[in-house]
Amino acid sequence: MTAVGIDAVEIWTGNLKLDLPGVFAPEKGEDPEKYTKGLGLNASSFPDSYEDIVTMGANAAHRLMERKRLEPDDIGRIDVATESAFDNSKPVSTYIAGCLESVFDGDFHHANKGERKFACIAGTQSLDDAYNWIRAGRNRGRGALVIATDTALYARDDPGEATQGAGAVALYITEDPDLVTLSTEQGYGSADETDFLKPNQQFPSVDGKRSVQVYLARMREALVDYQSVAGELHLDDVRFVPFHTPFPGMVRKAAMLAYRHIIRDTAVEDELAEEIGRQPRSEAFETDDEFRDALREYMDGLKETDRYQEWYAETIDPTLTIAREVGNWYTGSVHVARISALKYALEQGEDIAGQTLAVGSYGSGAQAEIHTEVVQDGWKEEIEALNLDEQLADRYELTWDDYEEIHDAHNHDMDVDIESMTAPDGEFVFGGWGRMGEREYEYVE
Amino acid sequence: MTAVGIDAVEIWTGNLKLDLPGVFAPEKGEDPEKYTKGLGLNASSFPDSYEDIVTMGANAAHRLMERKRLEPDDIGRIDVATESAFDNSKPVSTYIAGCLESVFDGDFHHANKGERKFACIAGTQSLDDAYNWIRAGRNRGRGALVIATDTALYARDDPGEATQGAGAVALYITEDPDLVTLSTEQGYGSADETDFLKPNQQFPSVDGKRSVQVYLARMREALVDYQSVAGELHLDDVRFVPFHTPFPGMVRKAAMLAYRHIIRDTAVEDELAEEIGRQPRSEAFETDDEFRDALREYMDGLKETDRYQEWYAETIDPTLTIAREVGNWYTGSVHVARISALKYALEQGEDIAGQTLAVGSYGSGAQAEIHTEVVQDGWKEEIEALNLDEQLADRYELTWDDYEEIHDAHNHDMDVDIESMTAPDGEFVFGGWGRMGEREYEYVE
Repeated sequence: MTAVGIDAVEIWTGNLKLDLPGVFAPEKGEDPEKYTKGLGLNASSFPDSYEDIVTMGANAAHRLMERKRLEPDDIGRIDVATESAFDNSKPVSTYIAGCLESVFDGDFHHANKGERKFACIAGTQSLDDAYNWIRAGRNRGRGALVIATDTALYARDDPGEATQGAGAVALYITEDPDLVTLSTEQGYGSADETDFLKPNQQFPSVDGKRSVQVYLARMREALVDYQSVAGELHLDDVRFVPFHTPFPGMVRKAAMLAYRHIIRDTAVEDELAEEIGRQPRSEAFETDDEFRDALREYMDGLKETDRYQEWYAETIDPTLTIAREVGNWYTGSVHVARISALKYALEQGEDIAGQTLAVGSYGSGAQAEIHTEVVQDGWKEEIEALNLDEQLADRYELTWDDYEEIHDAHNHDMDVDIESMTAPDGEFVFGGWGRMGEREYEYVE
Repeated sequence: MTAVGIDAVEIWTGNLKLDLPGVFAPEKGEDPEKYTKGLGLNASSFPDSYEDIVTMGANAAHRLMERKRLEPDDIGRIDVATESAFDNSKPVSTYIAGCLESVFDGDFHHANKGERKFACIAGTQSLDDAYNWIRAGRNRGRGALVIATDTALYARDDPGEATQGAGAVALYITEDPDLVTLSTEQGYGSADETDFLKPNQQFPSVDGKRSVQVYLARMREALVDYQSVAGELHLDDVRFVPFHTPFPGMVRKAAMLAYRHIIRDTAVEDELAEEIGRQPRSEAFETDDEFRDALREYMDGLKETDRYQEWYAETIDPTLTIAREVGNWYTGSVHVARISALKYALEQGEDIAGQTLAVGSYGSGAQAEIHTEVVQDGWKEEIEALNLDEQLADRYELTWDDYEEIHDAHNHDMDVDIESMTAPDGEFVFGGWGRMGEREYEYVE
């Protein structure tokens, strides 16, 4: 069976940057460490006034196609995952294809285009659909372009305001990929939850506490489900675990849950027992509260062990480096985490070809998915080709006044027209409104 | 290779009915034949005040699961296709799964749920994704539930107002299906078009004339693309051609286009030539206008031939019977057309097992897809089990005042609370709003 997976990846950040400890914290009268230590965030990316989900997605895809020397005819499918759509009928993929057709020869008239929505997990669902399409023998030798693009904005003064972000990730899915292959096996944890909603509204209504609980509950179910089909996951077999990262602090909790679950009834649990005892088992407790207290105590102990800290530093922390500087990109977030980990390995001079990633995706509403990936020989060239560091360094640093202005400019309920803060350079931009209220785009050299 | 396709289908109409010649036409001061002959419509289905895309989808899925004696564990995937979503993040499939979990034992926690959007073609795209998922070997013996559900409402006095409709189709996709198998081959015609949009709005902005042109142009591309991979389609090999049916008059144009394309350079063209000449070829004309005039003349002639009329009466007209009574169901429409054709065959006492359907799906924005299906031995039992005739007969007939009231009640921008016009009976209903603005549902015995 031919391997199928991600052949190439590109990333496009919004061109603006909000410094959380330096600009946001003082204005909110908060200790900067609330953001840097608590949430684990230094900065958020924001779209400039000429940027939106179409421009960011098209720019990431453009870079990817140019770098891989792809023509439209090489691409048989374009799926966009987003929860920031601005039309209830016409999919974002058609706008992005229109942008790309304006700079490439040929067209995408024979490519299947679509749009998926399920909070932040839709990017991974689109990746899975692309994998399935190739495996089903329907691709005619062509690859699939999957684009996860979002402007993750919250209402002003919402508790989520510090976790905003904006950017796009483009993935190219093929047979015999250069970057990673995907496992056929998938584990799901999915339930009808009310933790995060956008009922006919642009900015989310969030129950923050519930959202954390639901993330963990669904992720545990997905892990159990994955192991039921793929067999036990062993810590030593997994090099990195990229999780969906609404903010790095959430991933700290998810990592602990996954670690505790995986070491249960293994030699690792036995070896740690001398230091912190064995994991509490629910059947040994009379009440749920007592069990939960014991669990919390065990996790507090586990967190302090050298063994856990080393694992976390090597397996989880490298997945968070980019998120700390860009915030939450919703559908793109878990794919940013994968890039972050691979970039770390590259910078460490570590050759991870052949090693395994366990990828934990999540979307509120709610669903978690776990699958594994195997890093391919071409990974180093792919990651070396990214210009992410330049993109991040080139962002314009927002003052507080700038921030208030750009937030209003992107608010669909406000009619605010502002000067852009940066000058577009070799990229697609929003160019104005068409006669039917559609958004129009152009390429700026 | 095991065959994959549609094992079962169920349909759920909105509980209200608007009589177009009897109620709508007089109020608009129009000749009733504008609707019955021009558009080809007698009536539209509407949702009562307790109905929406969730209730209609859940009710169709509930009937399907009960009839096929399915448990939640039999279902590994639930995808909803809609362009009437009321949340920008949480997918409709989670609400529907929540409804079904309230009446079945077990849960859907290990089922992948999702939502697809691309105007009216997303239902077929979800069907294709389910097929690919099974072919990719990821289904673990389980089937996929695909639900196409829409409330196709237009702004009052919009030219599209006469083509409204509301209902859901549930499809169960499995290996060795009872109803139809799907071809691996697919043909696509897809372009970035501005014919029909809902930019941050519930009701569409439509360029009606352009929409007709785009439908035909994309369908022609899809047909050419399909034949490039699957080989020539021959008229005698295809029993029915269910098209996406925004209104039956549109399908009359599409059928003519497809027929003309398929007979070109065949014996059929030669045989018809004695009566109406051969088809005009563009290279024989100096200007596009002259070519188009000649084409129009050829088609006017073709339409009058016995041969075309017989083909249309046997192959196309049977796909339109239901649409004439329910209007446009957007994502469900082409799946209603398939049911309509099979129901006709059943009523004629014709055994069509082993025969081929060519299915022409379409979504504005814009994309057409053509694939073929082979009718399976179990088709008769499946179609016999539908209670569609009772559902249609049981609809409450709206007066003009009722119509104005129910349209307002479903308008997201109005806050109108009305008494329901029918009494729910053994179905899911909208039960009110939750604390985060979410819609809540309950089952009424």
